[in-house]
Amino acid sequence: MSETLAGHKIGFIGLGNMGWPMARHLQDAGAEMTVWNRSEARARLAAERGMNVASDPGAVAAAVAAGAGAGAGAGAGDGVICLNLTHNEVVASVVDWIEPVIVPGVVVIDFGTTGYSETLAFAERIRARGGQWIDAPVSGGQVGAEAGNLTIMAGGEAATFARVLPVLQVVGGKVTHMGAQGAGQVTKLANQLIVAQTIDAVAQALRLAELAGVDSALVREALRGGFAESRILELHGDRMVRRDFAPGGRSELQLKDVRLMSELAERVGLKSSTLANSRQLWEHFVHELGHGDLDHSGLFRIYETGA
Amino acid sequence: MSETLAGHKIGFIGLGNMGWPMARHLQDAGAEMTVWNRSEARARLAAERGMNVASDPGAVAAAVAAGAGAGAGAGAGDGVICLNLTHNEVVASVVDWIEPVIVPGVVVIDFGTTGYSETLAFAERIRARGGQWIDAPVSGGQVGAEAGNLTIMAGGEAATFARVLPVLQVVGGKVTHMGAQGAGQVTKLANQLIVAQTIDAVAQALRLAELAGVDSALVREALRGGFAESRILELHGDRMVRRDFAPGGRSELQLKDVRLMSELAERVGLKSSTLANSRQLWEHFVHELGHGDLDHSGLFRIYETGA
Repeated sequence: MSETLAGHKIGFIGLGNMGWPMARHLQDAGAEMTVWNRSEARARLAAERGMNVASDPGAVAAAVAAGAGAGAGAGAGDGVICLNLTHNEVVASVVDWIEPVIVPGVVVIDFGTTGYSETLAFAERIRARGGQWIDAPVSGGQVGAEAGNLTIMAGGEAATFARVLPVLQVVGGKVTHMGAQGAGQVTKLANQLIVAQTIDAVAQALRLAELAGVDSALVREALRGGFAESRILELHGDRMVRRDFAPGGRSELQLKDVRLMSELAERVGLKSSTLANSRQLWEHFVHELGHGDLDHSGLFRIYETGA
Repeated sequence: MSETLAGHKIGFIGLGNMGWPMARHLQDAGAEMTVWNRSEARARLAAERGMNVASDPGAVAAAVAAGAGAGAGAGAGDGVICLNLTHNEVVASVVDWIEPVIVPGVVVIDFGTTGYSETLAFAERIRARGGQWIDAPVSGGQVGAEAGNLTIMAGGEAATFARVLPVLQVVGGKVTHMGAQGAGQVTKLANQLIVAQTIDAVAQALRLAELAGVDSALVREALRGGFAESRILELHGDRMVRRDFAPGGRSELQLKDVRLMSELAERVGLKSSTLANSRQLWEHFVHELGHGDLDHSGLFRIYETGA
């Protein structure tokens, strides 16, 4: 990998299954990383790899703020704080930490799937301090993160997007500026809506075939390449046929995204009985049946057990 | 095209947008065609092309019955009557016509999407006369039919399937024997279930983005290749972005298939709130909004108008 970020100071908060390989790619591209993670174990790994481990998220912001706004001498990554966190509440608490330390020129890149309204509010708080916020949720899973080949859907000021593009390109294979603040989250939620509902459709179709005495593996094969073809049929359909529901993409996180898209739909006035039904289904699957830790293809069990 | 069916006598009932190119391909493969169609215009075209135009469906059956069961001399296509009709009721009326003329050795191939229970009943009537029934619904649309490249999902006796395979291969690029009688229809309905629900998902996702101020064409592009990728996103998503709802696949026929899958689900005991919701949605779109003649991607209008 070429050292496109050589010497740039980048902060990274949240070294989970997605954030950890992303931070490693940034370091491999030459960036000087300052990181923070809730769990000690991952932070220790980061230290062993030569990253600076900060004592709290505010210290991450303070470390990179020094490099921000240094004019022509500043690189694309200088003053950049990356977030990769799983829930709005965690993002909110991190914003509480970093907000007082933000100086003009700092850019916060939120790689997580964060609510639309929350994104606008967090961005406003950072802008009030002279900083910028890029919502840049990703798709492609842990496999894509490890390969540095994520799809990134970004929202925010065009000039800011252009400035941090080299950072985004280190972790993503396909980077698109979707529009104004929040447009990245809107796109990610559109993606997740299709994923949640297509998993449901494929589950019903394969279970319908089984109940009618037809081999679901053969049905999946016969449908491949036709109008019913999808990545979900290919990947999640295969898991359903094999009853392999080890995550992968946890159903609890799928439900989180379904809730975020319901909130967005309500905010912008999209009325959909399908979306309401989909939310009920995932709530039932995760909370009443307790399957939040299964891969989201495990929704199949709803049709298998009739529960 | 090689003349794999040279000299075989094949009947074809129903020369619609799908049946007409299929019949032409069979003739081009060397078969001697006897056909019947409800509308005169298409029958005239068939006559101009050198097909024998029968006066009624019973006469088609009589013409091919002569070639059936002629032992070692009979070809794969001899005694074969192909059906390509749009509704159960039309198939029932054709079965009324042909049933008395069926002799041992005759095989009826039903290329249409016919109900599961009806398929079992029609097949039983033909078997009682010594004939056989292969349910062989197709996927791939008019484009696939013109190209002789349909996906064919067949159900029925393995020996009968093997006998008529050369006929199926002339019209289909991918031919799969799915299992016992009705297994082809089950597979087609599984296909249509996924299509109906994925169209709905893509419509919601793109409209959600538009309502949030994000360009739906850009969203569709950003989602391509990721977990939300599907043939529906590729083809029908493009129609939604362009608001081009000229058929293509008519919504009235999509609703017909949704009803057939609901009946199958009830018969085999698949409980699904999603399927019930999907049926309500398509009923509303076709009957209350009167959009039966739009392409099924036109379901998008439900989210556009809020109706």
